[in-house]
Amino acid sequence: MNTQVFERSPQNSQLDQHGEFEHQINEATFDLKTYLSERRAQVEVALDQSITVVYPEKIYEAMRYSLLAGGKRLRPILCLASCELTGGTVEMAMPTACALEMIHTMSLIHDDLPAMDNDDYRRGRLTNHKVYGEDIAILAGDGLLAYAFEFIVEKTKQVQAEHLLQVVAKLGHAVAATGLVGGQVLDLQSEGQDNIDVETLNFIHTHKTGALLEASVVCGALLAGANNEVLHRFSRYACNIGLAFQIIDDVLDVTATSEELGKTAGKDQKAHKVTYPSVWGIEKSRHQAKELVEEAKAELAPFGEKSIPLMAIADFITTRTH
Amino acid sequence: MNTQVFERSPQNSQLDQHGEFEHQINEATFDLKTYLSERRAQVEVALDQSITVVYPEKIYEAMRYSLLAGGKRLRPILCLASCELTGGTVEMAMPTACALEMIHTMSLIHDDLPAMDNDDYRRGRLTNHKVYGEDIAILAGDGLLAYAFEFIVEKTKQVQAEHLLQVVAKLGHAVAATGLVGGQVLDLQSEGQDNIDVETLNFIHTHKTGALLEASVVCGALLAGANNEVLHRFSRYACNIGLAFQIIDDVLDVTATSEELGKTAGKDQKAHKVTYPSVWGIEKSRHQAKELVEEAKAELAPFGEKSIPLMAIADFITTRTH
Repeated sequence: MNTQVFERSPQNSQLDQHGEFEHQINEATFDLKTYLSERRAQVEVALDQSITVVYPEKIYEAMRYSLLAGGKRLRPILCLASCELTGGTVEMAMPTACALEMIHTMSLIHDDLPAMDNDDYRRGRLTNHKVYGEDIAILAGDGLLAYAFEFIVEKTKQVQAEHLLQVVAKLGHAVAATGLVGGQVLDLQSEGQDNIDVETLNFIHTHKTGALLEASVVCGALLAGANNEVLHRFSRYACNIGLAFQIIDDVLDVTATSEELGKTAGKDQKAHKVTYPSVWGIEKSRHQAKELVEEAKAELAPFGEKSIPLMAIADFITTRTH
Repeated sequence: MNTQVFERSPQNSQLDQHGEFEHQINEATFDLKTYLSERRAQVEVALDQSITVVYPEKIYEAMRYSLLAGGKRLRPILCLASCELTGGTVEMAMPTACALEMIHTMSLIHDDLPAMDNDDYRRGRLTNHKVYGEDIAILAGDGLLAYAFEFIVEKTKQVQAEHLLQVVAKLGHAVAATGLVGGQVLDLQSEGQDNIDVETLNFIHTHKTGALLEASVVCGALLAGANNEVLHRFSRYACNIGLAFQIIDDVLDVTATSEELGKTAGKDQKAHKVTYPSVWGIEKSRHQAKELVEEAKAELAPFGEKSIPLMAIADFITTRTH
């Protein structure tokens, strides 16, 4: 991965039709760290503006508390990148990018509840229900999920109605029992069982985290009106990096310190949770993740230099330390 | 209300373009009870077909358990009726009608949770979390909510994409903090307080139950491509019958037996809950409900005989005994 700092210069930036700087991507100057932090900053601004606190204030505050609690903003960034790669703009994709983060936040709030994973801390802060109570936390999740769909429809500009409907359907599918809800159910059912096979482990992760990651990438392309071949390539890219991401997450739970992770390390082992390292060992897990990333990148080969951000994000997954 | 039995005869039925019987509505032959039971039967079939049990079975079974637990199916029926009244068909509106019931069911499952109203029974059966556990109940609600949006987009035929997007936005708005979630929050905050004023009580009910009832009626008209004047009339009709419905619900909690209601009577009084009868007394509450229903019906006057079903549903609200 190229680590040169991205510099704004007439060579690699230009004012686009909306008067904003549009980065010309080329391998010599692209720096992922700068790219991610610039995109993250854009997403933070949009998320901050997405929910205003009105009466009854408590529910809006609870939704904002978790929505604006930081995080990598990987889903929004993937959505923006895939929309741009297929000829769309950041502006077209930002409402969907925000909706993806609202949905992701909903799943975290509900996962942390006492009846689910019973977590008191998330991203170094008290979880939603520890601050607002379980009832409000459940409702904050429901509110974020419902609002995500309204937000996409109300805020998206310059996208054909048919494409926007495809985004709505894709997101619904990615969250419902066919997606993250189904993955979470199987994860709960597998708890405390030590005879979980790799197929079950794959099902859990391709649904619990993979489905929304895949939707993030595919929705970006849907917004830009990409054709079926592109959509399939993006889907395979996203499924692969999603699974690689989870494998590395499991590996880091074993190898990294709590300080590096920003959350409790060694949690899976303590909970006797079946993970990729517990099935494959550390080395094979790392190898599998690397192969998935290579396959993911191969899907993007036809797009040339424009695919550098998504290529770099794929690489980042296997090289990250937290 | 006319109680003559609706008879299928060449005078009042004809085969429509889809080869189904289309009822010609006229005051002399319309019978609400038959109309509601016929419509309910259609909705039950569509709901039963809407969710298939696949792996992991438990979550699909949990969603079906609550979705197919009976009930009046008032929201779907309102949606179908309003779509027909504005020139649309039952076929066009059925996916949205089912989605409305999925969303309504989600709100019931989450409301019944121990962290919320903590109810063990609903419609004479054990509540979702008593059968499947709290974790699955939370996820079943999330799954139904997300699926509702996917279902509308995937299953609706013969509706313009722009109209369908309006339906998605309307539903999102009706469920989020701007709708039933906001109403539920205020309801929870008002518990145990005896200084709740009528404005707060109205806010709770226009949001907790009113918003989705309003969306039911308005979405039917949106699907048929109704103009703004019609949408506003339907919105006012629905807001009025929604509030009247709640007032009568409160009244019946005081005056009806548990057997009549199919749920515990006198629950509000026992919980020292502020209700319309506790603020206005029984008589004034009944009077207010009646006035709201009259105003609701006045909104439909321009539609003539075609509005008989929605008129009769409005009347039913104040005359019902359970």
